[in-house]
Amino acid sequence: MPPEELPSRKGLLSGLRVVEISSYVATPLCGLTLAQLGADVVRVEPAGGAADRTRWPLADSGTSLYWSGLNKGKRAVAVDMGSAADRGRVVDLITRGGPCVVVSNSDRYPELGYEALSALRPDVIHVLLQGRADGGAGVDYTVQAATGFPLVTGAPGAAAPVNHVLPAWDIAAGLYLAVGLLAAERERLVSGRGREIRVALEDVALATAGNLGYLAEAQVTDHERTKSGNDVFGTYGRDFETADGVRMMVVILTERHWTKLLTATGLTAAFEGLAEALDIGFAGESQRYEHRELISTLLARWFAGTRFAEAAEALDRQRILWERYRSFEELGRDGGAALRKSDLFDEVDQPGVGPHLAPKSPIVVDGGRLAPRPAPAVGEHNTQLLDRE
Amino acid sequence: MPPEELPSRKGLLSGLRVVEISSYVATPLCGLTLAQLGADVVRVEPAGGAADRTRWPLADSGTSLYWSGLNKGKRAVAVDMGSAADRGRVVDLITRGGPCVVVSNSDRYPELGYEALSALRPDVIHVLLQGRADGGAGVDYTVQAATGFPLVTGAPGAAAPVNHVLPAWDIAAGLYLAVGLLAAERERLVSGRGREIRVALEDVALATAGNLGYLAEAQVTDHERTKSGNDVFGTYGRDFETADGVRMMVVILTERHWTKLLTATGLTAAFEGLAEALDIGFAGESQRYEHRELISTLLARWFAGTRFAEAAEALDRQRILWERYRSFEELGRDGGAALRKSDLFDEVDQPGVGPHLAPKSPIVVDGGRLAPRPAPAVGEHNTQLLDRE
Repeated sequence: MPPEELPSRKGLLSGLRVVEISSYVATPLCGLTLAQLGADVVRVEPAGGAADRTRWPLADSGTSLYWSGLNKGKRAVAVDMGSAADRGRVVDLITRGGPCVVVSNSDRYPELGYEALSALRPDVIHVLLQGRADGGAGVDYTVQAATGFPLVTGAPGAAAPVNHVLPAWDIAAGLYLAVGLLAAERERLVSGRGREIRVALEDVALATAGNLGYLAEAQVTDHERTKSGNDVFGTYGRDFETADGVRMMVVILTERHWTKLLTATGLTAAFEGLAEALDIGFAGESQRYEHRELISTLLARWFAGTRFAEAAEALDRQRILWERYRSFEELGRDGGAALRKSDLFDEVDQPGVGPHLAPKSPIVVDGGRLAPRPAPAVGEHNTQLLDRE
Repeated sequence: MPPEELPSRKGLLSGLRVVEISSYVATPLCGLTLAQLGADVVRVEPAGGAADRTRWPLADSGTSLYWSGLNKGKRAVAVDMGSAADRGRVVDLITRGGPCVVVSNSDRYPELGYEALSALRPDVIHVLLQGRADGGAGVDYTVQAATGFPLVTGAPGAAAPVNHVLPAWDIAAGLYLAVGLLAAERERLVSGRGREIRVALEDVALATAGNLGYLAEAQVTDHERTKSGNDVFGTYGRDFETADGVRMMVVILTERHWTKLLTATGLTAAFEGLAEALDIGFAGESQRYEHRELISTLLARWFAGTRFAEAAEALDRQRILWERYRSFEELGRDGGAALRKSDLFDEVDQPGVGPHLAPKSPIVVDGGRLAPRPAPAVGEHNTQLLDRE
C-alpha cells in the first residue's frame, strides 16, 4: 500500500488495480509508469522469478539493478505458471474485487487472455505487447534492424549498422501500452466495458519512422538518407571538442541562435566574408544544413582553441543551446551528487543493492510526484494476495 | 470531423477536446497519439505557421514530410501570437464548450498557462513540455549528451560520442505527456477538476537511465560502461554479415535459443570442445556475455561462409530471433510495397505530397485502428473554429 500522503499526493491513478504478467522492458515499464502515478500494480512471475530477475547490470550481491529499476513500487506474486490451478489463482486475482487492468507480454495461456477474462469480467481491460502484429517474435534489437535507424547512425561512409544502446522501441512500446490502457480506462468509466489493447514493437518502430517523415521521404522523393555522424539532419547541430578535451553538443534552431553563435565565437565577419566570396548564404536552416561542413570547420577550429570554461561562458552569455557530454559514471559519482540536485531523484533502500538514488516519474502532477519505493522480492506478496482465501 | 465509422471504431478518445500549442516533436506527437485514438485535436500556430512547418525532410514541393507526419488528423488554426486579442481567441477556444485539454511546449504567454486557464475553467487539464524541470532550455540532442548513452554507443575504443539519430527522448516525452494527460482525465471524470501536468525532456532521459539500472550501476558498483558496438549488454546478441553481404542481427536470450543456434550453425561440437579445452562454460547469459568474443569469432566465420537465404532458413528452422537490416529507402521502395503488407499503414493523400502510405496508431483497440487522415494547412480551420462568433 502506498504510504499515507497528502490527498493531492496519493497519485492520479489511485484505486486502479493492475496485474502485470510480464518480463524484460516494455510491459514492466508500462506497469512502473502506472505505479508511479499511484496505481496498485501486482507483478506475476513464475516460481523462482522470471528470466529477467538476473538481467544485467547486477549489484555485487547479484541482485539485478535492471529488474529493481523497472519494478519499483510494485507488489509481486510467484506462481507455477505450468499448473492450471496456479493460473486459476491469477485469474481470481484479476477477476475478484474492483475492475482490473491486465498488462501482459504473453498469449501463451488462453485463460489469461482477453477473451477468457472478459467472459468472467466484461469490464476487464487487457493490454498485450507483441513482437510483431502478426504474432511473430521480435525484440528491440531485431526491430531496430528492421526499421532503418541503425543504417543512418554513426560516422559517414561506414557500411556497418550502428544500433542504439538505449532500447528505444521497448521504452516507446511500454508508454504506448500505458496510453492505450488509460484511453480504454477513460471509456470504461463511461460505458462500463473493457477493451482489448495490443501494441506490437515492430509497429511502434515503423509508426515512429512514419510519423517523423522517414517513410514518406522514402516513398515520394529520391533522397536517400545516409550516415552523418552527430550532424543534426536538416538544420545545424554537431558535437565539438574543446582545447582541454571536453565534448560539447551545440544546436542552432533559429536565426537568433545563429547570429548569437557567431557573436559568441567571434566569427561574424568570417562568415560574412565567406558568404560574399562564395556567393552563398547562411540564413535559414536549410542553407546552414547545406553548408554544414564549412560551418563546422570554422567552429571546430574555435572550439579546439578555446578551453571548456571559456566556451561554456561565451555560449551561455548568448543563450545558445548546448550541453556537455556526461557519462553514466559521472552521473553516479560521489553518491549521485549530480542527480541529487534534481527533484526527480530520491533515496531508495533496495534489498540486495542498498541505499541509492532512484527516479520518480518524469510526470509532475500539480508540482509534485510520488516518492520512489523499492522493488519487491520474488513472491513477496503471495501471502497477502494469493493465500488469503 | 472523423469519418462515420462503426461505433467501436469511433476511437476510445472520441469526445476529448485537445488544443495543442506546440512545435517540433514531443508535443505534436502527444496530440497525434490522442488524435489517432479519436480525440478532436486542434493545433494552434502563429500566423504563417510555426518554424517546424518547413522542417526537413521535405517533399519536392517544399511541403514538410516531418510536419505532415506528426500532425495527421488534426485541425489547425493560425493566430497572431503577439496580439493579446488573438491570444484571447485561443483562450476562448479552450474555455468555451466541453472540458478541454491543453498540450503546450511554451510557458511564454501567462494567459495560456494552467493558472490563468484553470481560473476560468477549473476542469481544464494542462500538460506542458519543458526542456529541464528548472525551466532551462533543452532539446533532444542536448539531453542525449547530458545522459550517458552517446558515450556507450558505437565501436569499442572510439572516444567520440555517437548520438542516436532517432529523437528517442522526444518520442518518450511525447508519450509520457499523453500518459499524464489521460491519468488526469481519469481523475477529472470522477472529481470534475483539472490538473497541471509537466514533463521535462531531461527528466525523461534521466528517469529512463535510472529505470534501466544504468544510474544505480554507476552509484553502487565500480563497473564502468564502455562502448561495445552492437553487442547486446549482459547477454548474447550481435550483427553478422553473410557471404553475399547481407547484414543480420541475431539475439540469444534463452538456453533453448543457444542450443538451437549451435544446431543451426553446426557448431555444437566446436563449442563443446572449446568448453572442455578452456575449462569454461556457455550455459547462462552471463557466461555467454563473458565469452562473447569467442562466440562471435566462430559465428562470424559461419555467417561469412553462408549465403543469406541459407542462413535465414537455418535460423528460422530453429526459431532463432534474428532480423535483416533494412534501410528506409528499402521500406519505401516500389510505393511502399513492404509497408503495404501491414495493417499499420493506409494511403493518405496529403496536399503538397501526394498519395503515400502513412501509419495509423500502433495501438490496436479490439482488433482495429482508425484510418490515417491528412495533416491540415496553416489556418485551415480558422473559419470553422475561430471566426464563428
